Amino acid sequence: MKTLACIAVAATLVTLAAPASAQFAKPEDAIKYRQSAFSVMGTHFGRIGAMANARVPFDAKVAAENAEIVAEMAKLPWAAFGPGTDKGGNTRAKPEIWTEQAKFKEYSDKMVAETTKLSAAAKAGNLDTLKAAFGATAATCKACHDAYQAKL
Amino acid sequence: MKTLACIAVAATLVTLAAPASAQFAKPEDAIKYRQSAFSVMGTHFGRIGAMANARVPFDAKVAAENAEIVAEMAKLPWAAFGPGTDKGGNTRAKPEIWTEQAKFKEYSDKMVAETTKLSAAAKAGNLDTLKAAFGATAATCKACHDAYQAKL
Repeated sequence: MKTLACIAVAATLVTLAAPASAQFAKPEDAIKYRQSAFSVMGTHFGRIGAMANARVPFDAKVAAENAEIVAEMAKLPWAAFGPGTDKGGNTRAKPEIWTEQAKFKEYSDKMVAETTKLSAAAKAGNLDTLKAAFGATAATCKACHDAYQAKL
Repeated sequence: MKTLACIAVAATLVTLAAPASAQFAKPEDAIKYRQSAFSVMGTHFGRIGAMANARVPFDAKVAAENAEIVAEMAKLPWAAFGPGTDKGGNTRAKPEIWTEQAKFKEYSDKMVAETTKLSAAAKAGNLDTLKAAFGATAATCKACHDAYQAKL
């Protein structure tokens, strides 16, 4: 019974995630990819944060350019969290990502949605609008990191 | 707390100076950024290569999606080759990049142009067109690597 349940779970996992995980030859490739995507996204998100927090003057054009890159990058990392990519490289991803797939997807979907809103807000060219959207997006980063990223 | 840390990072990331090199607080940040951008680009370019070289079946939709990401990513790394970013991290970038700026820019502009053509070719949905554009793009990668990337 236990074995059958295991097989059923394994079969479901494989079915759900085979296309995504098959895109990477090795777990370390997937880990490197998702870290790279987060790193590029973080750089551009940081530039928006600098404006939102008045560390640098607000430049609507620059904000819009950076936000567009953030929104595009935000779509990428998730396909690289396939089965078996919890180990095999230097990763801070917690095992719960693979045992709470639905919840993790909820977090990632929310983040993608917020970055899309951020990009739209940045295009509006208003600093207060940008600030609000930056705060909302940062909150989704934090929520997911708190839940699924091991502390340094 | 993570949000605060994020804001703090953003504050140090960007200085008031406008030049591209000033977008990175430290040379190692620029090096990490450009390597991350190249890594993400390379992953998606490799997927097109797998189709162009018949290692996986041609899927026009998947090719177009990957080519679009390649074209977007291709624009990013160059701003991270600013003055002073030749050292400060684990980089294979040759010193000639900084002594032959015009030539390096020529190579990078060519690569951006070829990836734009690649994306258009992928959208056409024809494998032979994709193969030709993939070959032309790969040649620009190789030419620049041969000139400006130290061998492993």
